[in-house]
Amino acid sequence: MSFSITLPDGSKKDFDSSLTIAELASGIATSLGKAAVAGKVNGELKPLDFVLDADSEVAIVTDKDEAALEVLRETVAFIFEATAKKAHSELRLGLHEAGEDGFFVDTDKADQIKVTELPELEKAMQKVIKNGEKIEHVQVAKAELAEIFKDDPFKSELLAKEADQVDAYKLGDFIDFGFKALLPNTGKIKQFKLLSVAGAYWLGKSSNPMLQRVAGTAFFKAADLEADLKRRQEIKERDHRTLGHNLDLFFVDPKVGAGLPYWMPKGATIRRIVERYIIDREVADGYQHVYTPVLMNLDAYKTSGHWAHYRDDMFPPMDMGDGEMLELRPMNCPSHIQIYKHHIRSYRDLPLRVAELGMMHRYEKSGALSGLQRVREMTLNDGHTFVTLDQVQTEFAKILKLIMDVYKDFDITDYYFRLSYRDPKNTDKYFANDEMWERSQKMLKGAMDDLGLDYVEAEGEAAFYGPKLDIQTKTALGNDETMSTIQLDFMLPERFGLSYVGQDGEEHRPVMIHRGIVGTMERFIAYLIEIYKGAFPTWLAPVQAEIIPVNLEAHGEYAEKVRLELAKRGFRVDVDSRNEKMGYKIRESQTQKVPYTLVLGDDEMNSDSVNVRRYGNEDQETMSLDEFINLITADVNEYSREK
Amino acid sequence: MSFSITLPDGSKKDFDSSLTIAELASGIATSLGKAAVAGKVNGELKPLDFVLDADSEVAIVTDKDEAALEVLRETVAFIFEATAKKAHSELRLGLHEAGEDGFFVDTDKADQIKVTELPELEKAMQKVIKNGEKIEHVQVAKAELAEIFKDDPFKSELLAKEADQVDAYKLGDFIDFGFKALLPNTGKIKQFKLLSVAGAYWLGKSSNPMLQRVAGTAFFKAADLEADLKRRQEIKERDHRTLGHNLDLFFVDPKVGAGLPYWMPKGATIRRIVERYIIDREVADGYQHVYTPVLMNLDAYKTSGHWAHYRDDMFPPMDMGDGEMLELRPMNCPSHIQIYKHHIRSYRDLPLRVAELGMMHRYEKSGALSGLQRVREMTLNDGHTFVTLDQVQTEFAKILKLIMDVYKDFDITDYYFRLSYRDPKNTDKYFANDEMWERSQKMLKGAMDDLGLDYVEAEGEAAFYGPKLDIQTKTALGNDETMSTIQLDFMLPERFGLSYVGQDGEEHRPVMIHRGIVGTMERFIAYLIEIYKGAFPTWLAPVQAEIIPVNLEAHGEYAEKVRLELAKRGFRVDVDSRNEKMGYKIRESQTQKVPYTLVLGDDEMNSDSVNVRRYGNEDQETMSLDEFINLITADVNEYSREK
Repeated sequence: MSFSITLPDGSKKDFDSSLTIAELASGIATSLGKAAVAGKVNGELKPLDFVLDADSEVAIVTDKDEAALEVLRETVAFIFEATAKKAHSELRLGLHEAGEDGFFVDTDKADQIKVTELPELEKAMQKVIKNGEKIEHVQVAKAELAEIFKDDPFKSELLAKEADQVDAYKLGDFIDFGFKALLPNTGKIKQFKLLSVAGAYWLGKSSNPMLQRVAGTAFFKAADLEADLKRRQEIKERDHRTLGHNLDLFFVDPKVGAGLPYWMPKGATIRRIVERYIIDREVADGYQHVYTPVLMNLDAYKTSGHWAHYRDDMFPPMDMGDGEMLELRPMNCPSHIQIYKHHIRSYRDLPLRVAELGMMHRYEKSGALSGLQRVREMTLNDGHTFVTLDQVQTEFAKILKLIMDVYKDFDITDYYFRLSYRDPKNTDKYFANDEMWERSQKMLKGAMDDLGLDYVEAEGEAAFYGPKLDIQTKTALGNDETMSTIQLDFMLPERFGLSYVGQDGEEHRPVMIHRGIVGTMERFIAYLIEIYKGAFPTWLAPVQAEIIPVNLEAHGEYAEKVRLELAKRGFRVDVDSRNEKMGYKIRESQTQKVPYTLVLGDDEMNSDSVNVRRYGNEDQETMSLDEFINLITADVNEYSREK
Repeated sequence: MSFSITLPDGSKKDFDSSLTIAELASGIATSLGKAAVAGKVNGELKPLDFVLDADSEVAIVTDKDEAALEVLRETVAFIFEATAKKAHSELRLGLHEAGEDGFFVDTDKADQIKVTELPELEKAMQKVIKNGEKIEHVQVAKAELAEIFKDDPFKSELLAKEADQVDAYKLGDFIDFGFKALLPNTGKIKQFKLLSVAGAYWLGKSSNPMLQRVAGTAFFKAADLEADLKRRQEIKERDHRTLGHNLDLFFVDPKVGAGLPYWMPKGATIRRIVERYIIDREVADGYQHVYTPVLMNLDAYKTSGHWAHYRDDMFPPMDMGDGEMLELRPMNCPSHIQIYKHHIRSYRDLPLRVAELGMMHRYEKSGALSGLQRVREMTLNDGHTFVTLDQVQTEFAKILKLIMDVYKDFDITDYYFRLSYRDPKNTDKYFANDEMWERSQKMLKGAMDDLGLDYVEAEGEAAFYGPKLDIQTKTALGNDETMSTIQLDFMLPERFGLSYVGQDGEEHRPVMIHRGIVGTMERFIAYLIEIYKGAFPTWLAPVQAEIIPVNLEAHGEYAEKVRLELAKRGFRVDVDSRNEKMGYKIRESQTQKVPYTLVLGDDEMNSDSVNVRRYGNEDQETMSLDEFINLITADVNEYSREK
């Protein structure tokens, strides 16, 4: 036997008998042997006792490496399983997984783990760890494991996919499989936390039974755990799903439809204001708003190329009899092309700006769905401008200006621009019209420079059909997200045979510009919830002022009078007339993040005034009702910047 | 042989040998013999030479009878066929039909009949009629006809459905079949008219080739024809399809989707104003507007009973994998029930008013589709109020008041009320809860009486699930149409297990009230187009003022200034800057039924004024721009009555 091992620095070591990763590490340096938690063999994570006996690339993983966290978290997940199983003898186990964001273990709902029980389980796990119990790595015959898990349908299903000899780990009596690499003992485990209990369908399929997912995380250093918990708290506070629930904005119920949100009255109010705002903005900017059907003959998507290239993301077509196949549209472009084609167009009609709040449907795997962020039914603030090639630069600049104006109104400041061109070395991968590409790419760049904007240039990132500008924002989770986009399209006008009569009396092909200002209503409002942490500016707030009479009997009538005065001026106002204490109502109004809380008692009633608390501000101020009306009017005008 | 014939007056005549209908008529009275055009044998229309030889009920049809018109029109259709075939030797024929609304004949598009050719064809038909050419009624073997029509695929397809001996008619060389009863000669034909040429799919299926449908009508008296042509002209002027085309409001293209309208910018503007108006109205009235998905798990429609009873009108379900079947909703009720069920409800929450502009899909046969009136995708101004039984009367009255207020704003005056109860003799045909029926029916009636309204009562016309009020209007075609409805529902709360916690702390079942104020956007706007004849009141008009500069160069700048002044106040204004004559532009503005046409020349420019023409009024008046702004503002406020 003779083989050589290549280390990350490129150096090679030759061996003539097998050795474990642990032995390799100790051989390099005693300190490395002590620090080692696992190895990476040809890029795959392996435990310290993994035997090396052939040519391979090996990296020793220590707690300085990212990958060490995965090993640590897999180990903690395993200890959790063993501990939970001890506490709940009937418990059955499903999937377990560890990675960048911590770990989770799915458990059977029949023997339920309560969230209140987590601290207790943590204590029990600490005890296992302190005792320094050994984690034994074993090879077990599949048949033997099948016997052990015979009453456990989930494990049995997972086991069926394994080879005859299964890599497993033991902790006392407890045994489990499906891990990449565990620590050989519990000595290195100090900082871990069980985070939550939530429902999760078995294997992520909504037709399967719902299990309980216990999630946790672990770190090598206390400071890292603390920072992570803080980050999680921050995310939780901004998470549009949590806020959407707490503020009663929307809900999704997979039983009536996965990825199909229901907008409760308050969420619907926000959406309605955004919709009216964006339509009015666009109409003022020369857009012609239309309504087009959400269904279309499948042939149109064959012509557009969607059916050939995009089919997996589309809903199943419906056979209507009469030879008609209807499809829920995945995009609005073919619909707006119908609007264009409905008349003979002349150069005098261009730029023709068609816009719509267009409902679309896209098939997303149920596992990928999330709140309002990833859905199957969405309404896009969509627009298509048809221009001559000469008009590209002016129209592009006009759209960009509109986007930035809208961002200002919503107080969106954290974004950057990305211009995508075709790959100059690979022009035959793109729609073939060199003049169009060359001129239009220059025009986009020219417009950006004229406006004095910074931008990233990305060669080879253009779509097949034309260059584009993306405007990137960050979600609360720190992910990059395309909020707005301006895409040139040379292809669809060709495919659908679009034309306009030029000044020369001849037919010409227009360029089509796809553009989205705020994206889909679903994603945009998810984003707004997160950047505002649910505290919407007054012009968007579903309830702008909450009126609280100090005493229902004494001040109820005055409260109603104030409500009417505000309502008839178009403000959204509620009176809290429940049988609750005043303090409770004030706190509730804060929890609901209502911009203004008005407390009305004798003093206020006798002087036609209101006592005003601004959200997030401890101060309170008494002012006349007229003064308050001026204040809230100015506030709404300030934020919306509509005039 | 011996048989007896029963006449309409009940008298019986016995015969011992066969006779024709003509002979029967002459036998009764010579004058009747002369007046007879056909007979009805056991309710079926038969020609005069039909042989009676068995017991039957026979009525002689004379030109005083409605049925005579059908005979006349079938005959004229037949003469048209013969004449058209002579003029177009290659012409192939499809369906022919005659009835209450005239007749039509489908002809092959390959050898096209032009609408301009109709007068010529009428003349040729007149000639045939004047010549008194004989129409011969013959029995022909199917095989013989098959040979005659062997090059005619449409006729061959129709012939295949006939018996071995085919009832046919001949006029000279021309032969055709498929008629009920023709006149034996052309003597009685005086008053007929060919009306139109339009496209029609073979057998009404959009997957079939498109033929040309020539339509016409005929009467016995000149005055009747004249009245009918006038009525047709009136309908044409009001027809929302014609107006929708002329005013560029919407279009439907069966190639991209039958029954799926595209709203062009002007139509979309009207719809948007109506939508915002009705939402604002409802929100002010205490409704909570929501958005709910157009797709839902099929199970919900199984629970609701729609799948069992309403399946033929529903779109085909979509299999999403994962065992999920999704259905395009045919109704919004189950969606709003989800909103109700999302929280535990208490008696303090009731009445809970949930409303939405809810998009729905219903499968209509392609032949039944018509413009915006009968469509497959529609957006309903829908609302569901959840109440305690005690609240039924108050809530019912409140909804009714809202409906009547809305009617006032749209100037809808021609309507009546119909209250539908369960059949008192057949109470077991209805949802079983006597107390609910008894009390609620009384409450509906009580509310109507309190409001001092007239109404029709219809016993046995209630839905299975509860009593209702329908508000009936008339379409331009004179058809009764249900515009608004208030329906009580005891069943769905039961089926979906809805409850609220009463003052007694116990769970109770709420009553659900389905209500629609203006129906679907599609039908309502079709209706508005018809009642306004396309001349929308200023608050609804897509373009409220058309500005026409006398000379583009001299007055274009002033025109733009006036446009801006009006636009920034929210008015919808266009400048007609085409290279056309002023007179043409003014006529065009009238044709487009724009409420105000502003002509701007030197005088207007030098005095900051505008020359105003009101639609439908010959007068013109010069006034300052400020005066005009006051005028149009008052006009908008007057019609909309929003404040």
